[in-house]
Amino acid sequence: MPDLLATGGTVFDLSADHRLRNPREYPRYYRREHPHPELLSEAVYGLPELHRERLRRARLVAVPGCIATATILALAPVARAARSSTARAVVDAKSGSSASGHDTGPAGQHAERSGVMRAYAPTGHRHTAEVEQETGLPTALSCHAVEAVRGVLSTVHLVGVEVPEERDLWKIYRSAYGAEPFVRIVHDSDGLHREPEPKILSGTNYCDVGFATDPEHGRAVLLGALDNLGKGAAGAAVQCFNVRHQFPETRGLEFLGLHPI
Amino acid sequence: MPDLLATGGTVFDLSADHRLRNPREYPRYYRREHPHPELLSEAVYGLPELHRERLRRARLVAVPGCIATATILALAPVARAARSSTARAVVDAKSGSSASGHDTGPAGQHAERSGVMRAYAPTGHRHTAEVEQETGLPTALSCHAVEAVRGVLSTVHLVGVEVPEERDLWKIYRSAYGAEPFVRIVHDSDGLHREPEPKILSGTNYCDVGFATDPEHGRAVLLGALDNLGKGAAGAAVQCFNVRHQFPETRGLEFLGLHPI
Amino acid sequence: MPDLLATGGTVFDLSADHRLRNPREYPRYYRREHPHPELLSEAVYGLPELHRERLRRARLVAVPGCIATATILALAPVARAARSSTARAVVDAKSGSSASGHDTGPAGQHAERSGVMRAYAPTGHRHTAEVEQETGLPTALSCHAVEAVRGVLSTVHLVGVEVPEERDLWKIYRSAYGAEPFVRIVHDSDGLHREPEPKILSGTNYCDVGFATDPEHGRAVLLGALDNLGKGAAGAAVQCFNVRHQFPETRGLEFLGLHPI
Amino acid sequence: MPDLLATGGTVFDLSADHRLRNPREYPRYYRREHPHPELLSEAVYGLPELHRERLRRARLVAVPGCIATATILALAPVARAARSSTARAVVDAKSGSSASGHDTGPAGQHAERSGVMRAYAPTGHRHTAEVEQETGLPTALSCHAVEAVRGVLSTVHLVGVEVPEERDLWKIYRSAYGAEPFVRIVHDSDGLHREPEPKILSGTNYCDVGFATDPEHGRAVLLGALDNLGKGAAGAAVQCFNVRHQFPETRGLEFLGLHPI
Repeated sequence: MPDLLATGGTVFDLSADHRLRNPREYPRYYRREHPHPELLSEAVYGLPELHRERLRRARLVAVPGCIATATILALAPVARAARSSTARAVVDAKSGSSASGHDTGPAGQHAERSGVMRAYAPTGHRHTAEVEQETGLPTALSCHAVEAVRGVLSTVHLVGVEVPEERDLWKIYRSAYGAEPFVRIVHDSDGLHREPEPKILSGTNYCDVGFATDPEHGRAVLLGALDNLGKGAAGAAVQCFNVRHQFPETRGLEFLGLHPI
Repeated sequence: MPDLLATGGTVFDLSADHRLRNPREYPRYYRREHPHPELLSEAVYGLPELHRERLRRARLVAVPGCIATATILALAPVARAARSSTARAVVDAKSGSSASGHDTGPAGQHAERSGVMRAYAPTGHRHTAEVEQETGLPTALSCHAVEAVRGVLSTVHLVGVEVPEERDLWKIYRSAYGAEPFVRIVHDSDGLHREPEPKILSGTNYCDVGFATDPEHGRAVLLGALDNLGKGAAGAAVQCFNVRHQFPETRGLEFLGLHPI
Repeated sequence: MPDLLATGGTVFDLSADHRLRNPREYPRYYRREHPHPELLSEAVYGLPELHRERLRRARLVAVPGCIATATILALAPVARAARSSTARAVVDAKSGSSASGHDTGPAGQHAERSGVMRAYAPTGHRHTAEVEQETGLPTALSCHAVEAVRGVLSTVHLVGVEVPEERDLWKIYRSAYGAEPFVRIVHDSDGLHREPEPKILSGTNYCDVGFATDPEHGRAVLLGALDNLGKGAAGAAVQCFNVRHQFPETRGLEFLGLHPI
Repeated sequence: MPDLLATGGTVFDLSADHRLRNPREYPRYYRREHPHPELLSEAVYGLPELHRERLRRARLVAVPGCIATATILALAPVARAARSSTARAVVDAKSGSSASGHDTGPAGQHAERSGVMRAYAPTGHRHTAEVEQETGLPTALSCHAVEAVRGVLSTVHLVGVEVPEERDLWKIYRSAYGAEPFVRIVHDSDGLHREPEPKILSGTNYCDVGFATDPEHGRAVLLGALDNLGKGAAGAAVQCFNVRHQFPETRGLEFLGLHPI
């Protein structure tokens, strides 16, 4: 990476190698020391919704993971508003088969993957570190594989806060995302798609966020949905590229490739 | 129901009408007063793993719901062992399409149901009341529809307790379920099915329970998996019938029907 | 329809009401007399690949069915080239769940529709009449429901002809479709998608055609694949509209809606 | 194999190595000379429905392929009854993902396999040879991968014969299979499952056969459905074992394993 940066270009890194600012998180979550910890303070986490200004001048962009993006976009604005030292999040994420990459061995074979509801990382998932870094909240993450080709749904249970009312959540999200080209607030009282649902986002760069309140149980449920092959990875990288190089932010993102579907 | 009971038979009620002992829960979760609250104290909740002795003499058995069964069997033994007034559970349940019944309108059509990860009840699901009653813990439940024909997976995040160690969880579950014919403890370190997974339970009356610990986040993750057309409904009713009428408890349950699959 | 046409507009009819030129086919395949047989000779069958010139002046366009389109586009050029009085086609079509419409009752429920391979019309399917009309060949059609949200694959077994060589089939299809914006010839010797495959056409207006020869069995296998919600129905109607009204033929068809997916 | 047979045991071979009686078919379909052609005349093709008496005394049983079994059981009785030198079959087979074995590389990954309708062998499939051998008819076979974990449906288009009437087909099949424990005749006028459908056979050793007539097109459509992990492979081997060793023929076959499902 130092050699690559020495060429003078801007690097958009889709791996996890520069997502974490704190070098100590690498041995903890990735089981190795980071070989160039000095790069971590320079790298900008590739969520324009949180870091657009810094992205405009970045040399090294660390494009986020798909589960992290869905979780952070749902949680970050509410976490900021809550300002509570007791706040914490329990995150239950679901993802489709393309999130595991192109060839994943026996576990990804159709006969084994069809119809699963598999807690493949009930604890210890690596995206935990990204989420805690970007939201500032202690986050307990559990990840599940379910049957879909594309899609991530992150169900974020926010506890330890004074539960906001629905109208407050509308305000918080509108304030955070009202001008965002790729984040939509979804919370309807009828229809098939009342809450964010990755199925309707296939082939797009959108992340839909939504919510429900549960004051009796001291909980707000925040939802983030996206296409892991769109906003969850390659789409996010293109969006960051557009921000960095002063292209219109939606350039190349109005229609994404649709294979596999 | 009073007329039916007056005939002298034993009633196995698969509906929700007698699952809750506290009449005040009916207006809260089912939006109506219970017409015969005097029956609620008599009805026995149809989980032999918790109420086998009472079931042997029951006149009215309230067979539990599928999400409730997966959640209660995973949570109850650990909740009892925790004995903490701050303990609470955040439950994230996933279920397949047959859990919605035979004809569910547009939302259940294949084209709409395929590949969904839908938070159909992010808060307020009716099974919340059963789970709280049977475990004694405040429980915040969120329910999701995912793509599968059969199956329920309940991911129970237990917080507010001193996190037990793995060996303690083995002990707790073995003590609770070691002699149970239909509950298995699943927690392996390798293989495709390290944790409970409903896919491998299709056509059976098993409920598999498992766990993972997350001491850094003050959490234990407890997992319950079953076939909603087996242990989650009809299979449970047959098991209760066997207990009530002194048949071998596994009678008729070694092979369940497999339609739809 | 006469009243509608009297308004002076052009009608693009997505129903089957004007697809057949011979009024006698309506009682045979649709079990009723046609109320306005005089319209049938005027209506133009909405396949630009076969009737582009007539479509430019049409008052009444009969947009074809999805299985018919996949079959006709695969078969018509080869049928014309074969010029054999003994030629006949056996067509085995497969289609996904959205081909049955929005609400299809119990048969379309996810639990019943998942994983089916169902010969729902082993004989007597209504599209038989369209295919025979447009290809001039006796055609024996069998239709199957398989699991997919979108997509039709028509496997056309052409028999009773001198089996063409592969290079002849390339020539025939290139001559017929070389200039077509929405028909592609797919026949590769390696890769995952060597033959037409509807999965990769979701959200498009393409019909891919391909072939294999089987001289030992006196047979050519012709394949047609499309998205039934694209070229198979609404996309075809838009394409006909463009042809009729002198818009660029691909207008509005470079990206189709993707719900359901 | 000679060494194995020399031990004096009976061999049940699930591979294709001894299915074909004519050694010349091996270079043609399997691209190699058979190393022990003398074994081919001795081997008995493992369909009890056709060869039960010979199986009772067999030393070497060649258990058939799944597509071949579904096709032969649907076609053989009608082929025998037709006794026509012009008779021929066009067979269009569909199969699920477990038919490809345990680890099939990128083509079998869930993301690539989900929702496919893929003509993976439009001509030249190896089971062609078995079908022609066992039915005596020229058979043109095309094989398709569709989305299902288990199941084969073979749609057999029988042409070049005087088309039998439905009542004749009932007679032919009843005569052939009336006493068979694992072949059922399915041909109903209403309901969801009017024709053979592999979905309802998962976990069983049944092969369901059915039919439809199409006299206008000179065709009978014959259908065979089975679970490729049951009657299509392992179940068939157990059935042959039972026949060979004088066990009740259904021993061990009333409930098959259900993984994957």
